[in-house]
Amino acid sequence: MEHDLTYTVALLSRTPASLDALLRGLPDAWSLANEGEGTWSAYDVVGHLTHGERTDWIPRARRILEFGESKAFEPFDRWAQQRECQGKSLPQLLDEFAQARAESLRELRALNLQPADFARRGRHPGLGTVTLAQLLSAWAAHDMTHLHQIARIVAHQYREAVGPWNAYLGVLQCAGHSAPPIRK
Amino acid sequence: MEHDLTYTVALLSRTPASLDALLRGLPDAWSLANEGEGTWSAYDVVGHLTHGERTDWIPRARRILEFGESKAFEPFDRWAQQRECQGKSLPQLLDEFAQARAESLRELRALNLQPADFARRGRHPGLGTVTLAQLLSAWAAHDMTHLHQIARIVAHQYREAVGPWNAYLGVLQCAGHSAPPIRK
Repeated sequence: MEHDLTYTVALLSRTPASLDALLRGLPDAWSLANEGEGTWSAYDVVGHLTHGERTDWIPRARRILEFGESKAFEPFDRWAQQRECQGKSLPQLLDEFAQARAESLRELRALNLQPADFARRGRHPGLGTVTLAQLLSAWAAHDMTHLHQIARIVAHQYREAVGPWNAYLGVLQCAGHSAPPIRK
Repeated sequence: MEHDLTYTVALLSRTPASLDALLRGLPDAWSLANEGEGTWSAYDVVGHLTHGERTDWIPRARRILEFGESKAFEPFDRWAQQRECQGKSLPQLLDEFAQARAESLRELRALNLQPADFARRGRHPGLGTVTLAQLLSAWAAHDMTHLHQIARIVAHQYREAVGPWNAYLGVLQCAGHSAPPIRK
């Protein structure tokens, strides 16, 4: 389907609570474990999502509206959460993500986008020309990429414990496609 | 890591609320869409999870404890939700899943499993000999397989809308591994 702002916002507004319900209070053995050296834990992913709220999606939407293709987006730092999360607990990160997302959605509403705006173009440092509709679609799909990743990271911890069921559980066959690390 | 009942229960107890937060009230364009003919929507997945609570995990744990390897598990009907969900709304299914899972966890506690029980063996109709620990691990990993699947199904609807970001979003490269349909 084509991009629809109502649908995008419906999804974006639900991700923080879904991750919160899954991860808050979950034993560290699930939430701090990763898939091996150089890969992310669920904790890292929440930090990454929060960093994206602050530096990526809305700032890029603004740049499209203000500069069009004349000024490329800032490259996204995919390892920034390692600095920004230091010393923080997972519940703190979940709170920060929920707050940052709520703030992003307020800013999105304040942009008061009109139908013609969605075709406006910007410049991605790696992908070249992109439209505002593509940016907003990617924001929503990016949430799903990381929910997909978190489910995979958690399941990975039981990859041996499931014994012969390993063959039947699709998530255990998932190599991650774009990880490590997730590129944007 | 090895199976740990505390960890398994921590995960199993969180999945219904996580799916509820993601899916309740989400536009049908996300929750009723699938990945093509013969594949499941998020709605179908919630029905499948509910059916599994009633007929699969706890009944199989009981069979291991009562019959060991002398009586194989009943095969699981992977398309049962098509009959059982007819006419139900997604909010109804989410309520049913939450109730069925809560009931399963009550029954699990009532089994009062002791350390030696986890090595007890049963017989899977397709996989052969399995242990109780493997069954319980697979139950938790099965939740993650379907959370992983739902994230993929939802993202799939925006596979064209994201334009050039398609290449960067891992979830859009995921072929599903074991789908359709998810086997157990």
